[in-house]
Amino acid sequence: MTYCLAITVDAGLVMASDSRTNAGVDQISTYSKMFHFGIPGQRRFVLLSAGNLATTQAVVNQLRYEMTDAAAIPSLAGVAHLFEAADYIGSLSVQVQQRNNDAVRACGFSPEATFLLGGQIGSEPHGIYLIYPQGNYITASPYEPYLQIGETKYGKPILDRIVHCGLSLDDAARCALVSLDSTMRSNVSVGPPLELLIYPRDSHGPGRHVRFDPEDPVYARFKHSWGQGIKEAFGRLPRFDWE
Amino acid sequence: MTYCLAITVDAGLVMASDSRTNAGVDQISTYSKMFHFGIPGQRRFVLLSAGNLATTQAVVNQLRYEMTDAAAIPSLAGVAHLFEAADYIGSLSVQVQQRNNDAVRACGFSPEATFLLGGQIGSEPHGIYLIYPQGNYITASPYEPYLQIGETKYGKPILDRIVHCGLSLDDAARCALVSLDSTMRSNVSVGPPLELLIYPRDSHGPGRHVRFDPEDPVYARFKHSWGQGIKEAFGRLPRFDWE
Repeated sequence: MTYCLAITVDAGLVMASDSRTNAGVDQISTYSKMFHFGIPGQRRFVLLSAGNLATTQAVVNQLRYEMTDAAAIPSLAGVAHLFEAADYIGSLSVQVQQRNNDAVRACGFSPEATFLLGGQIGSEPHGIYLIYPQGNYITASPYEPYLQIGETKYGKPILDRIVHCGLSLDDAARCALVSLDSTMRSNVSVGPPLELLIYPRDSHGPGRHVRFDPEDPVYARFKHSWGQGIKEAFGRLPRFDWE
Repeated sequence: MTYCLAITVDAGLVMASDSRTNAGVDQISTYSKMFHFGIPGQRRFVLLSAGNLATTQAVVNQLRYEMTDAAAIPSLAGVAHLFEAADYIGSLSVQVQQRNNDAVRACGFSPEATFLLGGQIGSEPHGIYLIYPQGNYITASPYEPYLQIGETKYGKPILDRIVHCGLSLDDAARCALVSLDSTMRSNVSVGPPLELLIYPRDSHGPGRHVRFDPEDPVYARFKHSWGQGIKEAFGRLPRFDWE
């Protein structure tokens, strides 16, 4: 399984992903699920993926290839709006899935993949999209400015409490880390390293990319602090009437 | 949907449940999912249910009826061990499901129900069981002394951090409330009132039953305290190197 998360706040975007892939418990691997595309100073896209790894890689290869091909229409170099990029990625994903659908399903697997797209094109607003395996897509609501794919439930309560449009980029990144950490503790199919991408609005550059290995001292301090904070919050809960 | 939770600690049992049932968004009702059975001073059982409401009610009716029928074998009045009670409830559940299976499935519904059983018989240890719709059952591990049914994922991270066998009954009850509250915030299919049952080991009585309506001032204080605690824990997280 997988857990990926995109948060859009006024100040920019935070994208976060785990790195565990598995096809059964004896086929566990580590793959980055975060892919970067861009033209410096002009446009920037970050793609997160969940689902079939072959589908994901085929879609990413095609996106990269067509971005460098001036004749390719559409391409990530040419789309004028972020929703067009989502539409294009959705169409590519459906094409790739259909190519091997019968053979893959005959083996009991699914070719489906789901994507989170974050990015900004020129002076258009930055944004995030969730692209379904069927090729359709949604953006986030301003009331809940985040989208999730994969194992989404364990890490949702903290997002519902903390995330809003006015959050700073660094606080949004911290919230994404808490959400990923809570998911990893409760579900073995989501695993390190964790990747974070912080994209400041209107920067049109690669943003700040951080990767946390399990032994990373920064991540260890972070986990310890959160664990302590939760225990303290729990310890301060009101007593029942009968205590 | 539903969220029910059973925690077994050295000091006894905590059982907790929400009260929302639904068959589509325009058929939402409030039903208790907690059922009590016992012979004072001798044995006590608490049953929590998720899934088909008709199946649940039929099983509970049968359990009640057979408990008062001296000739009924097995019955909750007669079983000698808690695992026998789980086995008996599992068999009843399968019988009930089979009775209407074809008709229910033909309408696109499932007759399946899942149960959590907590209790104690005489001088036997207290314990908890999860009874699957197929009639088989498991007990909890001493390393993770809790079991969940229904919408289990949102409320699992807090259990993984806090629950252990040495926890006091009141702390286990507080943890169950946090787990239910987190689930309700993130999933509209789980709703109030919340019910808590605290059974002290070897008491063989009804234990302490509490019901929290949405406007209950104790529950409101509790929610406020937890929300504040989470925000404070979040605010105290370490800064990143670049901040």
